[in-house]
This record gives sequence, structure tokens and C-alpha cells, in this order.
Amino acid sequence: MAANKMTVEELQERLSAALFHQWLGLRVTEVTADGIQIRVPWRDEFVVNPDAGYAHGGILAALIDTASDYALAAKIGGPVPTVDLRVDYHRAALAGELRFEARVIKLGRTFSTAEASVFDEQGRLLASGRGVFHMPAS
Amino acid sequence: MAANKMTVEELQERLSAALFHQWLGLRVTEVTADGIQIRVPWRDEFVVNPDAGYAHGGILAALIDTASDYALAAKIGGPVPTVDLRVDYHRAALAGELRFEARVIKLGRTFSTAEASVFDEQGRLLASGRGVFHMPAS
Amino acid sequence: MAANKMTVEELQERLSAALFHQWLGLRVTEVTADGIQIRVPWRDEFVVNPDAGYAHGGILAALIDTASDYALAAKIGGPVPTVDLRVDYHRAALAGELRFEARVIKLGRTFSTAEASVFDEQGRLLASGRGVFHMPAS
Amino acid sequence: MAANKMTVEELQERLSAALFHQWLGLRVTEVTADGIQIRVPWRDEFVVNPDAGYAHGGILAALIDTASDYALAAKIGGPVPTVDLRVDYHRAALAGELRFEARVIKLGRTFSTAEASVFDEQGRLLASGRGVFHMPAS
Repeated sequence: MAANKMTVEELQERLSAALFHQWLGLRVTEVTADGIQIRVPWRDEFVVNPDAGYAHGGILAALIDTASDYALAAKIGGPVPTVDLRVDYHRAALAGELRFEARVIKLGRTFSTAEASVFDEQGRLLASGRGVFHMPAS
Repeated sequence: MAANKMTVEELQERLSAALFHQWLGLRVTEVTADGIQIRVPWRDEFVVNPDAGYAHGGILAALIDTASDYALAAKIGGPVPTVDLRVDYHRAALAGELRFEARVIKLGRTFSTAEASVFDEQGRLLASGRGVFHMPAS
Repeated sequence: MAANKMTVEELQERLSAALFHQWLGLRVTEVTADGIQIRVPWRDEFVVNPDAGYAHGGILAALIDTASDYALAAKIGGPVPTVDLRVDYHRAALAGELRFEARVIKLGRTFSTAEASVFDEQGRLLASGRGVFHMPAS
Repeated sequence: MAANKMTVEELQERLSAALFHQWLGLRVTEVTADGIQIRVPWRDEFVVNPDAGYAHGGILAALIDTASDYALAAKIGGPVPTVDLRVDYHRAALAGELRFEARVIKLGRTFSTAEASVFDEQGRLLASGRGVFHMPAS
């Protein structure tokens, strides 16, 4: 895979420019040749089911989209538009920090594919998914 | 398609029980034999790109998930867990009310499929997608 | 939606140029402003489960990909590469003619989205799905 | 991940019971704790574009469905119905043996998720994808 063009700090700065990312509280914690890691503190507004207390699937979808896009950003220098997104839900996400691991599957000329998985504090897989992204004209 | 088991008011009450739905500002505006309509007022926190001012794809994904789930809820009496979600992005969503149209594609015994499309105030298609949902044991 | 650029006969001729389409036995039976219809006679080689006698999901996936692509071909003058494909399975496909209805959801500049549904001889929905397609440079 | 319940020979025997699998020429070549490997010799009927000579995306979709399902079969004792399938196309598949690597992402009670990637003889990634599968009642 190509070398990275953005550091943890640069990715974080770019991420934090978006109001929705600020609301989500995304924190880039690692960038390696293989991918990136993002951590997200729990927020009560994530909850969809007030009795069971688990997070809305849409929150996980938004974070999987963002983590995948920023795995790609690390390689190409900035985030790009999502063409489509697919998310698989594996286990209910209960209160606690969420950890996202994301990586590029295919770096293409017109389209690229990247994926992300989200884990709870015990390391259990909660959800995973992929996006196809539209590469900038070069 | 089966008759509805929930009215606009019942769907709205159930929706509003979730903090994330309150934050999103979802308003059920129509329930017919064919599906449901949900309207969502713009929020500045939806924005991902502060220069261009368009909404984060994750917001649209969350709303497509929710609208699809509640199209199913109207038929079966309540929302059910999402197994997987897929979203296609067609056009940037700029500031303005969002209108979601959702319907059930297949009502099954163990799992069901539903879809939603989102339009801007000019009626242009912004995104569309589908979810597979896990039916409650009967 | 844009006017059609290909007739039933032109779509059929283009389809039949592919050996795999010949093997599948695809027959274009209708082209309207709204989409296309394709009929596929049953083949014993479609079967995945020799006891239950239903078709392999991959056959339905291949046909949904093709039908979606040709719904787009009707609008733009020829088939284009699939970027990604998603298929939902609703009911086992037993021996009998398969009927595909396909239409374009969004005609874009760089990529387009189209969908197809497949029905059995009794008109029951067997599977449905979508593809994103890469538009030719203009 | 759980121990395997089927050997290469058992998986091959079960695979070969399907006429479509015989036609595709699937050959199980490896089963480990992490997943399975399947090899598929080229067939001229795979071709969709007679000039460029590359395989139909539907062939790759069918093989990704099958490889994912059999990665799951290795763990649970037999193949199970596909609920939905998603395939990303990364590079045109030209004449030559295809190698599929498949693994289970999540082994669930009602639903499981598995994925597969396909490589050409030079080890280049051609396509990859995922299926959700419906687990048998236990």
C-alpha cells in the first residue's frame, strides 16, 4: 500500500473541521502503513433504545463511513465523497468507548474501496462495513 | 402489502423515545398502505464540509436506516434491529428540509427488506438505500 | 428520465455478444421510458440444491447485474462496468421462467445507479438488487 | 474462530453436488482455522466482453457468494441460504485461474457474515465482497 500523506495531527485537524465530527467526538489515535484507528467516546445521544441503551445503527454507519474515508485520506491527502456505503451489524453497541480500525482495500484511479470495523472496550466486533469513494480528478 | 398497525402519531411517539431521533428532529408526516414519509429540518451539525455546506453522508445513512425501519414498524407494530444497511449517494444534500419516502420491499418471517429515498425541497433525489431487518420471534 | 438510445433488438444483439449471456439465455422483451424487461428460461445448471431444486443465488446476482446494466445501456447507448453490486434474496427461485424488471435510479456523470427485481411465473418477488456503474468519459 | 467441522474433501463433495458449481469448476484447495481457499479454472463462457476478454461480474459475484458460504460451511457443517450479497469490483478479470480466499467475519445465532476476495495468477485483487447468511435453527 502507498505511503501515508497525512499524520495523526493533520487527519485530526481535517476531521474536526466538520461540525458533525465534532459532535461525534472522533479522535484519530493511530496511523500506520496498514490503516488508521479512531476512538469515539460514548454520548447519550447515540442511544436508539432507551431501555436497552444501545447505540443507533446510524451512528455506527456514520462512523464507519468516516473512518473508511479517513483511511483513504491518509493515503491521498484528504477525504473524498462517498459513492456508496454498506454496513453489517454484528452486536448491540452498549455504553463505552468505541474503537474503529479502518484500511484501504483498493486504491483506484476513479474509485477506491475502504473498510472499517468497530470494537467495544472488550475488543468485541460490533459492526463492520465498506465504502466506495470517488477519487479526485488528478 | 399488509395493513398498517401503527398510525402517524404512534410512529412519532415511538420514534421520539430515542435521544438520537430527537437530535435528528425526525417528523413522521404520512403513513399509507404503500409506505411512510418522514421530514427532517436542517441542522448545522449535519454539515461535513464547512465550505460547501453539505450534509455528512452518515446523517443520510442514519435517516435511511430509520425511515426503512419505521416503514416496517408501520406494518408490524414496532421497529426491529437492522441486520445490514446499504446507502447510495446521488447528490450533495445542501441546507434545507429533507423528505424521506420509505417502503417495505419484502415482509418475511425471519428477515424483511425495506428501502428509503431522500429528496430535497426541489424534489431532487439525494440518496437512497436499503436495510435488511431481523423480525421478532412470533 | 432520458429518452432511450437503444431498441429491444439493439439491446438483444449487444447482450448476445457475450458468451455468458448466451449461456444464461437472456431475452430482452420490453424497453420503455421507465426501464427494461428481460426474460430468462430455466436451465438445470442454475440449480444449487439438487434436492430442493432452486437456483444458485449467484445466477440471480449475475442476472440482476446484467439487467441493471442494460437498463442503463438503454439510456446511454451501451453497457458499462459495474463498480459494485448488492443483491437481496427474498424467496427461493424454483424451476420456471424468470422475469427481470430493471430501471435506472440515478443517471450521473461519473457513476450511475440502477436496480432490478426478479419475479417467478406467478409474479412473486424472488430477489432484487442494485448496481453502481462507471460512466464512460464523454 | 470456531474449529472446522468439514475437511477439504467434505467441502468439495458438498460443493460438487450442485450442477452450477460443477459448471463453474470450483475446487477447494485449502481449509484452515482462518478460512478456505477455492481455485477456479478459466472457462470461455465466463467472458462478457468478447473484445477485451474479461469475465462477467456475475461470475465473480456467484463465486464470492459461494466461497463466503463455504467458509461458513467449514465452521458449521454445511452451506446455508444467502440473505444478501455485496460485491466490489476492483480490476478486470482476464483469462487465467482465479483464486478465492474466504473467511467468516461473524458467526451468529440467526445471521452470520462472511467475506471473500478473488485474486488473479499474479496475486492482484480482482474483486471482493460479503454475504449475510441465515443460520439453521438449532
